[in-house]
Amino acid sequence: MKLLRFGARGAEKPGLLHSDGTIRDLSAIVPDLAGEVLLPAGLARIAATDHAALPIVDGATRLGAPVSGTGKVICIGLNYADHAAESGMAVPPEPVIFMKATSAICGPDDPIIIPRGAEKTDWEVELAIIIGKPAKYVTEAEAMDHVAGYAVMNDVSERSFQIERSGQWTKGKSCDNFGQIGPWLVTRDAVENPQALDMWLDVNGERMQKGTTATMVYTVPFLVHYLSQFMSLHPGDVISTGTPPGVGMGRKPPRYLKPGDVVELGIDGLGAQRQAVVAD
Amino acid sequence: MKLLRFGARGAEKPGLLHSDGTIRDLSAIVPDLAGEVLLPAGLARIAATDHAALPIVDGATRLGAPVSGTGKVICIGLNYADHAAESGMAVPPEPVIFMKATSAICGPDDPIIIPRGAEKTDWEVELAIIIGKPAKYVTEAEAMDHVAGYAVMNDVSERSFQIERSGQWTKGKSCDNFGQIGPWLVTRDAVENPQALDMWLDVNGERMQKGTTATMVYTVPFLVHYLSQFMSLHPGDVISTGTPPGVGMGRKPPRYLKPGDVVELGIDGLGAQRQAVVAD
Repeated sequence: MKLLRFGARGAEKPGLLHSDGTIRDLSAIVPDLAGEVLLPAGLARIAATDHAALPIVDGATRLGAPVSGTGKVICIGLNYADHAAESGMAVPPEPVIFMKATSAICGPDDPIIIPRGAEKTDWEVELAIIIGKPAKYVTEAEAMDHVAGYAVMNDVSERSFQIERSGQWTKGKSCDNFGQIGPWLVTRDAVENPQALDMWLDVNGERMQKGTTATMVYTVPFLVHYLSQFMSLHPGDVISTGTPPGVGMGRKPPRYLKPGDVVELGIDGLGAQRQAVVAD
Repeated sequence: MKLLRFGARGAEKPGLLHSDGTIRDLSAIVPDLAGEVLLPAGLARIAATDHAALPIVDGATRLGAPVSGTGKVICIGLNYADHAAESGMAVPPEPVIFMKATSAICGPDDPIIIPRGAEKTDWEVELAIIIGKPAKYVTEAEAMDHVAGYAVMNDVSERSFQIERSGQWTKGKSCDNFGQIGPWLVTRDAVENPQALDMWLDVNGERMQKGTTATMVYTVPFLVHYLSQFMSLHPGDVISTGTPPGVGMGRKPPRYLKPGDVVELGIDGLGAQRQAVVAD
């Protein structure tokens, strides 16, 4: 299934993309795509619904992030060997993690807002994992049972805040509208192999990032297992699994976003995003 | 006012500490200490209530964190010059920030749980700021209008995860029960000067930390102002403002927590916490 949330920001309703290409309203079936609805039983209830009988939503509606009630966004740094190389950093001996503020989350086509004082706003197409069942100390073999599904994520990053403004990356990762997620939460059963997905990102129609999840250093089940050794994961938590090569910081010379730019990105089977870049 | 949340974990109700020393039930007045209730109008409504007429709660009840709906916990690193020195680090030219997972938040007397594989679990008494009104790009002069109040926080830290397990401190800061907050949210009007509060922490009755918020490098209004330049702050967000000297890592030789230890900590006017240390 391709689950989504539609409507004005802060007032999104749950829905899904039906096989006929229309958006269908799920709000009579579940209150939101959050918490217990993401548990296997909740997703099974949506799957068992007659989708063709659900109300059709105007296709021009805004989409929000396809998950709500997110307690934390855990991002993985340097998880593609070739991206680490372009950043001038070594692949770490175990995953590097940092947090993005949940207040940065927005819809897939919401603008990228360049914060005041920013100079080096950059893009990062990433495969996001949406947690569907509480996870603590799970093994790698058990890990996939805790995954509700996947989504495209743009881990927007202001490099000057991240690197030049006194320690810890979160400062350049947490600005408002620095976390576009969606268009859909594609449920786990609908993704045959999360480690074989092509991904891409364009700026003004020019291909900047081109990669595949096949070259991820730490895989989806490993990351869920690994993170669950440090903290409990809860339904709605998001794990953004790192970006392939082609970020602006890695170009020679570096290239960063400016107002008026348009960023488009996508992952095979998970849909695409399109963002206007604006100044704050 | 001293606001609090009481009851079983995950099912806490809002309450307050009345001037007669009893806990009073606020659940008929407000749904929880979260979101709009923390806005100035929400706190004014609680203040205008006849506290003596509120139901008395059994004083033996468990206390939860005194705020709910926390979207992010932003911690400030090295914000006391003498703590930076004991950590072998320089005071940074601007605040170092990192995130603690909201899933780490717990009540003031809930146990410190040493995670599996941990070797260096440490304590940090801190003054926590609770945001009461959305803040973005606020000046230092405006900042205090956005503060609902203050609480004691133990920024529990596993130093091996934080420092020795591949980059970014959040890994050692986000374990379950690594964020005791409370006993109370003391509203801003009840704290004459947040930069003149003595603070302390004992392990097994032995004084480990002794400090005062007077020696904070970056003050409460500066931090609210500063953080709001990077991201929006929302009601219920928590800013933990750093720890004074005396952490276990800074002792010679270092001293870390073990199962059976008892940690007690407090800040003048904000109450005290008491935690048993247990293994996971």
